[in-house]
Amino acid sequence: MPDASLLECFENPNPSRDYVIEHVADEFTSVCPKTGHPDFGTVTLRFIPDKLCVELKSLKLYYHSFRNEGIFYEAVTNQIADDLAKAMQPRWMEVETNWKGRGGIRSVIRVETGKRG
Amino acid sequence: MPDASLLECFENPNPSRDYVIEHVADEFTSVCPKTGHPDFGTVTLRFIPDKLCVELKSLKLYYHSFRNEGIFYEAVTNQIADDLAKAMQPRWMEVETNWKGRGGIRSVIRVETGKRG
Amino acid sequence: MPDASLLECFENPNPSRDYVIEHVADEFTSVCPKTGHPDFGTVTLRFIPDKLCVELKSLKLYYHSFRNEGIFYEAVTNQIADDLAKAMQPRWMEVETNWKGRGGIRSVIRVETGKRG
Amino acid sequence: MPDASLLECFENPNPSRDYVIEHVADEFTSVCPKTGHPDFGTVTLRFIPDKLCVELKSLKLYYHSFRNEGIFYEAVTNQIADDLAKAMQPRWMEVETNWKGRGGIRSVIRVETGKRG
Amino acid sequence: MPDASLLECFENPNPSRDYVIEHVADEFTSVCPKTGHPDFGTVTLRFIPDKLCVELKSLKLYYHSFRNEGIFYEAVTNQIADDLAKAMQPRWMEVETNWKGRGGIRSVIRVETGKRG
Amino acid sequence: MPDASLLECFENPNPSRDYVIEHVADEFTSVCPKTGHPDFGTVTLRFIPDKLCVELKSLKLYYHSFRNEGIFYEAVTNQIADDLAKAMQPRWMEVETNWKGRGGIRSVIRVETGKRG
Amino acid sequence: MPDASLLECFENPNPSRDYVIEHVADEFTSVCPKTGHPDFGTVTLRFIPDKLCVELKSLKLYYHSFRNEGIFYEAVTNQIADDLAKAMQPRWMEVETNWKGRGGIRSVIRVETGKRG
Amino acid sequence: MPDASLLECFENPNPSRDYVIEHVADEFTSVCPKTGHPDFGTVTLRFIPDKLCVELKSLKLYYHSFRNEGIFYEAVTNQIADDLAKAMQPRWMEVETNWKGRGGIRSVIRVETGKRG
Amino acid sequence: MPDASLLECFENPNPSRDYVIEHVADEFTSVCPKTGHPDFGTVTLRFIPDKLCVELKSLKLYYHSFRNEGIFYEAVTNQIADDLAKAMQPRWMEVETNWKGRGGIRSVIRVETGKRG
Amino acid sequence: MPDASLLECFENPNPSRDYVIEHVADEFTSVCPKTGHPDFGTVTLRFIPDKLCVELKSLKLYYHSFRNEGIFYEAVTNQIADDLAKAMQPRWMEVETNWKGRGGIRSVIRVETGKRG
Repeated sequence: MPDASLLECFENPNPSRDYVIEHVADEFTSVCPKTGHPDFGTVTLRFIPDKLCVELKSLKLYYHSFRNEGIFYEAVTNQIADDLAKAMQPRWMEVETNWKGRGGIRSVIRVETGKRG
Repeated sequence: MPDASLLECFENPNPSRDYVIEHVADEFTSVCPKTGHPDFGTVTLRFIPDKLCVELKSLKLYYHSFRNEGIFYEAVTNQIADDLAKAMQPRWMEVETNWKGRGGIRSVIRVETGKRG
Repeated sequence: MPDASLLECFENPNPSRDYVIEHVADEFTSVCPKTGHPDFGTVTLRFIPDKLCVELKSLKLYYHSFRNEGIFYEAVTNQIADDLAKAMQPRWMEVETNWKGRGGIRSVIRVETGKRG
Repeated sequence: MPDASLLECFENPNPSRDYVIEHVADEFTSVCPKTGHPDFGTVTLRFIPDKLCVELKSLKLYYHSFRNEGIFYEAVTNQIADDLAKAMQPRWMEVETNWKGRGGIRSVIRVETGKRG
Repeated sequence: MPDASLLECFENPNPSRDYVIEHVADEFTSVCPKTGHPDFGTVTLRFIPDKLCVELKSLKLYYHSFRNEGIFYEAVTNQIADDLAKAMQPRWMEVETNWKGRGGIRSVIRVETGKRG
Repeated sequence: MPDASLLECFENPNPSRDYVIEHVADEFTSVCPKTGHPDFGTVTLRFIPDKLCVELKSLKLYYHSFRNEGIFYEAVTNQIADDLAKAMQPRWMEVETNWKGRGGIRSVIRVETGKRG
Repeated sequence: MPDASLLECFENPNPSRDYVIEHVADEFTSVCPKTGHPDFGTVTLRFIPDKLCVELKSLKLYYHSFRNEGIFYEAVTNQIADDLAKAMQPRWMEVETNWKGRGGIRSVIRVETGKRG
Repeated sequence: MPDASLLECFENPNPSRDYVIEHVADEFTSVCPKTGHPDFGTVTLRFIPDKLCVELKSLKLYYHSFRNEGIFYEAVTNQIADDLAKAMQPRWMEVETNWKGRGGIRSVIRVETGKRG
Repeated sequence: MPDASLLECFENPNPSRDYVIEHVADEFTSVCPKTGHPDFGTVTLRFIPDKLCVELKSLKLYYHSFRNEGIFYEAVTNQIADDLAKAMQPRWMEVETNWKGRGGIRSVIRVETGKRG
Repeated sequence: MPDASLLECFENPNPSRDYVIEHVADEFTSVCPKTGHPDFGTVTLRFIPDKLCVELKSLKLYYHSFRNEGIFYEAVTNQIADDLAKAMQPRWMEVETNWKGRGGIRSVIRVETGKRG
């Protein structure tokens, strides 16, 4: 079950500067709530940190917490964006999920928060 | 025969946010009205949902309804854009069809509706 | 409905020599007899002609005759091999069908007749 | 000899909307007027139609009419742009020719007419 | 928990001929028994059927039954080979698992049964 | 019109050794005798020279002599093999023509003479 | 231990012109301060020089000085940017580090200084 | 020794129109003035011609004149830009040199003159 | 310093069957004994286990022990083969090292022990 | 001028074992003796050493000695094979040169000495 409490942060080493951090997780999996079949995708997180940066291992464990959750593409993407926005309060953030094909259709969902400046 | 009544929608889980959904269907086929030969292409749909999102399986069945229809590239693309605009009323939408070569010429048609913001 | 009578042949211009002809058709489609959904694949034909070579346009029309046929991957492949073997009587022949993914699984079926020498 | 009279047009099915049509011809060939050797390239045509769209088969035959013409890269590209602008009167158009290497140098020529909006 | 009883077979439509069937499943996942972290890989099955062929949907469900199983790469591969050999009794079979990197090392395990002829 | 008299040879600088020479010409074009439309392909020549090697520029001009000839794929390939075999008398030779798609079907013709040893 | 004193500069040969220099180092390695395991990545430096350009061999040796340093991705990237800004005082500069996967997650850090103009 | 007098120009056939010409030379080589070792790279020239266009063969010979010259990356790029600007007086021009790796570092230098409009 | 005592093995789960295990490590680095500069490469290990299989994490640590060792390509490859042969006593084994370019030359070293059967 | 005296060898560290060494040089250049234009290619050397291995830096300098030599593809390849065979006396050796296109034709020359075993 998705668990935002797994997310840990560390202090941004350079808060005086706007810079971009990107973490690409190729091995995301959840379950389709309609069919019960597994969904597989890539989650790309990009952000400009303010005071905090998400710690990589905690991010991985947070993603793993979706493994047996029945949840739609759109909801996964918005929830990840909301959970990370709450945990890190970044200056800008983008979450993109890229899903392998189902019935011949591949999907991408892209959520952005804040201004890229 | 193309059948827009096959399209079903579900409620946008995050209408308070502008975000982009993309569905890429690699296995579109229709028939050339001039020669009667099959045409093969990829249909890419991108949109910012307002109140509704198109349901994936219904989108697939809608695309299948073109299978034995004699229809030109330009008309297919505009019709898909019109049918989806009517069904979802998205804030912004783009439909791109990308056709395999005929006589050494490959074609792409790109239709946009609304403003990307 | 698959129609082997569409196949036309012309005389092999060099029967004194063993040589290989390959025709790759990227745009094959038939229908899954179980679900009614379309299947998409590539059919690769390789052969050493004896007295006859299959004419390209007739091969295309023969492939098109599978468009609305409900038929399994294994059966398609064996039938194409049987129909072409009967029409051309080649010294050697290989038919390979390569199917786009269904439910996350892509398939290949490979049938060979005669000896490659 | 290049022959613009080969170009045929059909009525734009959606003149109320600005949309982009792209035709990529991989098999263009003409002759170098200096050396007499054949040149090979790709011609990409992109346009926003106004009242007319160029018909694909007529476009192919028009391109074939350059086959034995001695003509420089720059002149080919400008002539194709001029002939198509005259035939279709598009709202916007771009013609790009992409030539295979000669003496270790590959060339691209890109001509644009009208405003993309 | 891996469940071989999920595997269903249908009759080989051409038992008189030796031919090769390949099914590539890109979305296999199990769990590392040591760390509890998920493993992701591709399972490729190739076989020459005798009397039976494995049914595709049942194969997918069988692969899904490994989803939450703690099991090593080598054991997964051998078990899949054993379960499928028992279910189909193929003339020849090869099972190859191809695992995404862990700690900078990617692994492949390849098991073969019977003679390819 | 194909003209084998254009082929010129030079003496093999190392006749005491069996070694392989390969020349790949990406820009071959001839004409389909049935439709009058141009065909485009790649011609790959591989050989083990005996006393003579074909001179590159003469090979290019020989290929150009097919430019406006109406001739089938199979005939082109066998004629090139025959003309080069006669001109060079190589210990072994292979000619492979690889044609761009026509009606969704791409073709390859492969002719071999002599023994590779 | 990272050593900025290794960096040597030479005079910009064209200070009257704004132009971009890019150096891509594929073989950067440092050590994760948490696990002690090596990290591997690519460092891309882009800048518009003012009076000075960094000398390539000295840049390589400077990068090598991180080899056995325990340091996080974010800190490496900011430190390289700071050291080079101090050494060259460029008009504009971007440092991008691109790290190989750890636990299924690949990361990119991008720091920019000055205005691209 | 670099020799700008090798550059020849012909009249721009369409001076009334702004259009882009690109010439990509994959086979540039000069010598490192420090080590005496050869450098290899690609030179990409893009320009909007005014009254004159550089003739391709003369451009090739001009590039060859750098073959045994000891000269740094930055100097080569600026000199090519200066020589071509003087010879053609283009409305806009960009010269990009892309160098193969030395000691694990690949470099790109990009010089622009005029306004792209 | 290379340390074979880091290698740990576990029991082959299927010693009754010959099967192939492959581990590809993309992140190998050692030091050139001549110049003191770091070398970077990929180490591919393939083997048919007898009684023992090398444990993955111990293999990674063993490879890391070369990090600051001055050693030639040929010696690294032979030493890895010898150390692993001693630790696992495999029925067959191949070690291939693939090194990034130095001075424009990339190298591969391939050592095989035992018979592949 | 090609200078075999530049080649230096070191003792094979494992003469008791047959193993393969491959060195790929992407940056070979010589001059066409007919036109005076530079030729560019890749030289791949593969060998099983006996008592000696060629030293990498000396190999690079040896290749550089062809830089301004007018010599045909076939002659270059045979001479490199002869010079290296004389210097190293390998158990088996293969030299392959792979040349960039001239007039639309790319060439490969492959010379082998000894038995691969």
